[in-house]
Amino acid sequence: MTINIEIANKDDFKAVNSIIKEGHNEHAEALPHIFKDIDQVMPGKNFNELLEDPNCEVLIVKEYGDIVGFAVIELSESPPFDSMTPRKFAYMSDFGVKRSSQRKGIGRELFNECLNWAKNRGADSLDLNVGEFNRKAISFYENFGMKTVSRKMTLPIK
Amino acid sequence: MTINIEIANKDDFKAVNSIIKEGHNEHAEALPHIFKDIDQVMPGKNFNELLEDPNCEVLIVKEYGDIVGFAVIELSESPPFDSMTPRKFAYMSDFGVKRSSQRKGIGRELFNECLNWAKNRGADSLDLNVGEFNRKAISFYENFGMKTVSRKMTLPIK
Repeated sequence: MTINIEIANKDDFKAVNSIIKEGHNEHAEALPHIFKDIDQVMPGKNFNELLEDPNCEVLIVKEYGDIVGFAVIELSESPPFDSMTPRKFAYMSDFGVKRSSQRKGIGRELFNECLNWAKNRGADSLDLNVGEFNRKAISFYENFGMKTVSRKMTLPIK
Repeated sequence: MTINIEIANKDDFKAVNSIIKEGHNEHAEALPHIFKDIDQVMPGKNFNELLEDPNCEVLIVKEYGDIVGFAVIELSESPPFDSMTPRKFAYMSDFGVKRSSQRKGIGRELFNECLNWAKNRGADSLDLNVGEFNRKAISFYENFGMKTVSRKMTLPIK
């Protein structure tokens, strides 16, 4: 396998969007009351804002030149409340590998690259949110030693 | 048991803060890297802002005149993204019953009052976040039929 992990640029939007769409469709199918199935999940404007944000990095994985994975990771700090322990953390707001390129270790390489990014910027932890329906992703993250801190619960009202 | 559920006013801050502190201490003990053990968890200014917010309600439970429980609930809408299904939801940002008054059904009454509040305002669901360490609270919410939608995961970086 020949893969390269690079920092994304504006020209990568279309390819990244098609991977985002695959993941978003799974969400829209599992949680239709929260997510809508649409073609362009992330507006191009937002993608460019991420690229320009100095606290954020968009990484892409290329396999023989094609974009087959991406991650969005940003550096954050705990809010300045007396009740919170001051800490710096990396938040992975998006992560995906093209379905046809899964189960080849690409996600693992990309995740480790994100972890290095977080380490190099002095983050105390790498944090993320994942849908409870997405057992595949939860197992993937657990394999890196990630633990659940909190859960979001909901009660539909008839 | 004689309890009354009322809308809080400014004079209730001290009593509510002492209940918030009990819950916060449990968080600081379980997650010291995130929460700090302090006396006044919520500044009085923030409490007054909640009281004045038209989309928010602070409810208190009185047992023989003493404040033994409280809940903070607010009405929200999904962000106006094309990828999100428009929905109105009630978010319970805080909820607590004084330790010495637990296991008497007070929490159940208060939760049901919050649920009524959400129903009366046309919310599609009642949502909340709960710490994974807080098994007691998770069981309590599950007894009302609440389900986990997503989880926050973390990986400490050495």
